Amino acid sequence: MSGADSTHAAVNFEGYTCPLPIQKHEVVVMGHGSGGRLSRDLITRLFLPGLGQAAPRVLDDSATLMVNGTRLALTTDSHVVAPLTFPGGDIGRLAVCGTVNDLAMVGAAPLALTSGFVLEEGLPLDELEQIVRSMQAAAAEAGVSILAGDTKVVQKGGADRLFINTAGVGVVPAGVDISGANAQPGDAVIVSGTIGDHGIAVLSAREDLGFETELRSDVAPLNHLVAAMLAAGTLHVLRDPTRGGLATALNEIAEQSGVAIELDERLIPLRPAVSAACEMLGFDPLYVANEGKLVACVPADQAQAVLRAMRAAPYGAEAVIVGQVLPGPSGQVTLKTQIGGTRLLDMLAGEMLPRIC
Amino acid sequence: MSGADSTHAAVNFEGYTCPLPIQKHEVVVMGHGSGGRLSRDLITRLFLPGLGQAAPRVLDDSATLMVNGTRLALTTDSHVVAPLTFPGGDIGRLAVCGTVNDLAMVGAAPLALTSGFVLEEGLPLDELEQIVRSMQAAAAEAGVSILAGDTKVVQKGGADRLFINTAGVGVVPAGVDISGANAQPGDAVIVSGTIGDHGIAVLSAREDLGFETELRSDVAPLNHLVAAMLAAGTLHVLRDPTRGGLATALNEIAEQSGVAIELDERLIPLRPAVSAACEMLGFDPLYVANEGKLVACVPADQAQAVLRAMRAAPYGAEAVIVGQVLPGPSGQVTLKTQIGGTRLLDMLAGEMLPRIC
Repeated sequence: MSGADSTHAAVNFEGYTCPLPIQKHEVVVMGHGSGGRLSRDLITRLFLPGLGQAAPRVLDDSATLMVNGTRLALTTDSHVVAPLTFPGGDIGRLAVCGTVNDLAMVGAAPLALTSGFVLEEGLPLDELEQIVRSMQAAAAEAGVSILAGDTKVVQKGGADRLFINTAGVGVVPAGVDISGANAQPGDAVIVSGTIGDHGIAVLSAREDLGFETELRSDVAPLNHLVAAMLAAGTLHVLRDPTRGGLATALNEIAEQSGVAIELDERLIPLRPAVSAACEMLGFDPLYVANEGKLVACVPADQAQAVLRAMRAAPYGAEAVIVGQVLPGPSGQVTLKTQIGGTRLLDMLAGEMLPRIC
Repeated sequence: MSGADSTHAAVNFEGYTCPLPIQKHEVVVMGHGSGGRLSRDLITRLFLPGLGQAAPRVLDDSATLMVNGTRLALTTDSHVVAPLTFPGGDIGRLAVCGTVNDLAMVGAAPLALTSGFVLEEGLPLDELEQIVRSMQAAAAEAGVSILAGDTKVVQKGGADRLFINTAGVGVVPAGVDISGANAQPGDAVIVSGTIGDHGIAVLSAREDLGFETELRSDVAPLNHLVAAMLAAGTLHVLRDPTRGGLATALNEIAEQSGVAIELDERLIPLRPAVSAACEMLGFDPLYVANEGKLVACVPADQAQAVLRAMRAAPYGAEAVIVGQVLPGPSGQVTLKTQIGGTRLLDMLAGEMLPRIC
């Protein structure tokens, strides 16, 4: 299915090379929603050529545009997580935080959100009400309003209960220039806390897996954390490692910036419950989704100041330096393992945990 | 299911009175997606109380907010039309035009769109590609870019092929103040062309109805038409009569503005094919969805100038005055019928044509 190994360069886009055009027999597979290699494949082979001049020009978490001297950030996310409620959150909190965080990842203060609901006929209204209340609580925490909404209903069997799209608009403060393309050799790589909590928490809520843990999703709005970081120092890159996890996010950054990134496995914060679940299920926590974490590339001389600010801010108490940016080879992410070896970390190749957000 | 006849006024919002809170046994029904009375019921009973302070303050097609002296418009729509392709358009064109038009209905020039895709596993990629190309063509026609996107995939049976959410941000020119709350007694009510074309065209594409027509959907971006109207005179109200049709849109305006609206049935433009299909199927064309039409309330002394500008603009050739705004009774919409009687036009009560957009 994937043509990622093809040498046919039909489209070149921000350093991504597009392989073969869409073939007649190809269909959507779960991996197209993974956030990893196959998602990238769909974007470069179908969406970008299809949208032509109307397509996004940069593949950051939010697009930005200048309007009368103000730099706006704009982003969208559809949410199809199953089940709708999981330890530590639900689809409502996820939908608000996901979009607030995408805005925050270009340094934008969130201004307003929209929400679009697709409801399956038969969904209990009190369950929907609970989820809407959860959206409100998350929006209040982030300090953002949900200014516009839309509701569609499909017949029973036409959708799996409830999908929520949120889009968001924010304002990037003057002088802030954060992008996946801005990593520079020597930058410290910081993560804001433990990784993999969200993915494993959602997984634990899927009854058919017969697997339980006390772990809660980390789903949280990171805009106040980012504001504290911006006040403490210069930030080159921010990204929230959602689908595809930390490894995929770092691969995107290395590719966009034309640099290499080296991680030290011993420094990566990991809850024992996540570690145990991953071992049991054969997952690599570096590829498991987070919904309340960020990874940052920060000039080395500012890393300690930024780290201090993070540790004093909401959702940054466990922030830590986990690696560094190297001049090359361009696009390469490596992991110095606990036992002293070096492992190449590629993007997520298939689909590990479908419908995680 | 509907509590619309209840006298329990739990919430008051822009003149809408909210009846009973959500009861335990209530579930989502198709009518909640109709755009009519039950949709309103869901908004006032569940979304507005649930979102609390985070909720929208005005129920126009777009919300507006001031940012550094610029008035932005913000809107969203999810699209679940079935089938994905119909005479005159497809879900891609619909998704772009729907959001461009919601921006235009507050007088905003569209700045950028986002698009969020929910794909069902197994959807042919060449079909998706065709739809994305159609989005591009519609965006190019409107002169807007699709700056951000997101793709999720659900397993086979988890969604009905493809849903597209679009959100949009636009800029409202200084001095423009268009809202459903601004209709004034004496205003002329103008529609931009024939009504009901979209709904009947989509219906004709549903094979199981065994009914065919040469009719095409009117789906089109109306921003250039609105720009021409703004240049020609003062506009009090604009609304695109989508779900729920012309009658529901006028009911919303009459309610928001605290006025009455009187239509003259003989003046309402209607294609013979739409008229015939509605007669055959027992539909009232006043409640059938449009996707490339607008209704405007314009000061009487400016109506002819606006009308002339509309007839010279894209998608306005058949614009015509169909009625007038009266002082009261507040919220009432009436139709002077062809045979000289007067008929009360309420909002759409149930669901006539599910998944029309």
